[in-house]
Amino acid sequence: MMRDDFEAWMLHTQQAVEAALEAWVPAEAPAGLGQAMRYGVLDGGKRLRPLLVMAASEAVQGHPDGALRAAVAVELIHAYSLVHDDMPCMDNDVLRRGKPTVHVQFGVAQAMLAGDAMQALAFEVLTPSPDVLPAALQARLCGLLARSAGHDGMAGGQAIDLASIGLALDEAALRDMHRRKTGALLQASVLMGAACGATDGAAWRGLADYGAAIGLAFQVIDDILDVTQASETLGKTAGKDEHHNKPTYVSLMGLQGARDYAFGLREQAHVALARSGLAHAARLSMLADKVVERDS
Amino acid sequence: MMRDDFEAWMLHTQQAVEAALEAWVPAEAPAGLGQAMRYGVLDGGKRLRPLLVMAASEAVQGHPDGALRAAVAVELIHAYSLVHDDMPCMDNDVLRRGKPTVHVQFGVAQAMLAGDAMQALAFEVLTPSPDVLPAALQARLCGLLARSAGHDGMAGGQAIDLASIGLALDEAALRDMHRRKTGALLQASVLMGAACGATDGAAWRGLADYGAAIGLAFQVIDDILDVTQASETLGKTAGKDEHHNKPTYVSLMGLQGARDYAFGLREQAHVALARSGLAHAARLSMLADKVVERDS
Repeated sequence: MMRDDFEAWMLHTQQAVEAALEAWVPAEAPAGLGQAMRYGVLDGGKRLRPLLVMAASEAVQGHPDGALRAAVAVELIHAYSLVHDDMPCMDNDVLRRGKPTVHVQFGVAQAMLAGDAMQALAFEVLTPSPDVLPAALQARLCGLLARSAGHDGMAGGQAIDLASIGLALDEAALRDMHRRKTGALLQASVLMGAACGATDGAAWRGLADYGAAIGLAFQVIDDILDVTQASETLGKTAGKDEHHNKPTYVSLMGLQGARDYAFGLREQAHVALARSGLAHAARLSMLADKVVERDS
Repeated sequence: MMRDDFEAWMLHTQQAVEAALEAWVPAEAPAGLGQAMRYGVLDGGKRLRPLLVMAASEAVQGHPDGALRAAVAVELIHAYSLVHDDMPCMDNDVLRRGKPTVHVQFGVAQAMLAGDAMQALAFEVLTPSPDVLPAALQARLCGLLARSAGHDGMAGGQAIDLASIGLALDEAALRDMHRRKTGALLQASVLMGAACGATDGAAWRGLADYGAAIGLAFQVIDDILDVTQASETLGKTAGKDEHHNKPTYVSLMGLQGARDYAFGLREQAHVALARSGLAHAARLSMLADKVVERDS
């Protein structure tokens, strides 16, 4: 596939996801809740998770509406986690995607409620009438999303993160934390896309391995960018890992070691895709490159 | 049905729900998250929502495992909402079910994460392997639960509550707030139980009307108990509505007016059950009495 085609596909997909979020995150939710939810999720971010859902679904000729709903749902979960993570009791961050964070803009209580409502909305989006989306697919998507968001996934990873500030984690402990905190939802994005179509065991395993590799690579690059980029480029506060005395891949491996590790994970992702036996995995392959080559 | 049988059924059901929560809320979740989740949901409360699920399911000869999972899921959503509602940025309450609140015991950040993980766990519980529970029922239960918990239900009601402190709401506005804040999840409990079996249109409408009536009655009684009972009896801080200058049914109607209103709603619930045409609705009928006659 030509790189120009890929860039056009990314843009088209991001626009479709943005339009769906625009339509499904309700401005009319009462007492300013809708505004806070929309502020927290619209018009921001690279939409990496939705891109993974859509690329994986296309690789298995998946149900298009199912994939779009899954893309919106994972982005809602991701966005809610950022809203809660930025709050004063967690990272106490004031800048996100170049704008004041939700709690700065709407107050701490409204930010917590907006995050809570965004999590519920993710499951609403996945459960339309069975005429719109087969019930079996709805159930499968809800199950994959819930497990990646909960105690064994994202929320569990955040609890480890919270408990590990100032501690000297070894690489295995750091990897376990990130596998849950960011890796689980990135992998779930790939698998939810895959669930929208038919997969044999090899394809499912290949996509799961691909998702695990890029999930980890994403975090390694995040740690690198935190020390190499300015806040303006990131759209969020740079240097905060060191400021909070958090263990990172850079503090553990050094900058070059972390870069080498990320490139190794990209290679693992490519190998996993090759093993999947899927003929239409070029976009997933290019997304793995994007994850490792990004500069913000 | 004899009242003794009803009491025995309640006890048996509460024990079954407690055992399921004990089994499904993971002690092994990392970094203390599991302890905080279990502290927030185990060994506490009257389990009214689970009782409504189970009674409604029995009224329609519903899928027993589906009903138990639905009962656990609604209780997890209810418990997470209490954990978040008690936090300093919301009601800032230190006492719940006679114990220190979760954020007092585990810290504010862990309390927020525990609530977040409890919401995700509710949807995990509803989405086991399709061998265990038919996928169509899983999808239906997830959809009902998500809509009752989100912006149009509980979270929306809490946003209105937050925005209404010190304001003079009229009865319609107060009813709209409570329909969302507590009514939506109580009604969803009834409907999730009903979804576990077969219902015709009349039965579904009857159960929906029953659920709406007891949902509102529950809140009216809550407002009455807040002014008439001591904190020790309630297991939570009494008198806090007046303290926070929150509008209540008592402030709007007076104590006797609120009592009359609650008894009227109980009557509506009984009439709705009669209209449902269901032969096995005696337990739902007795639960309506329980809601109105409770003293804590």
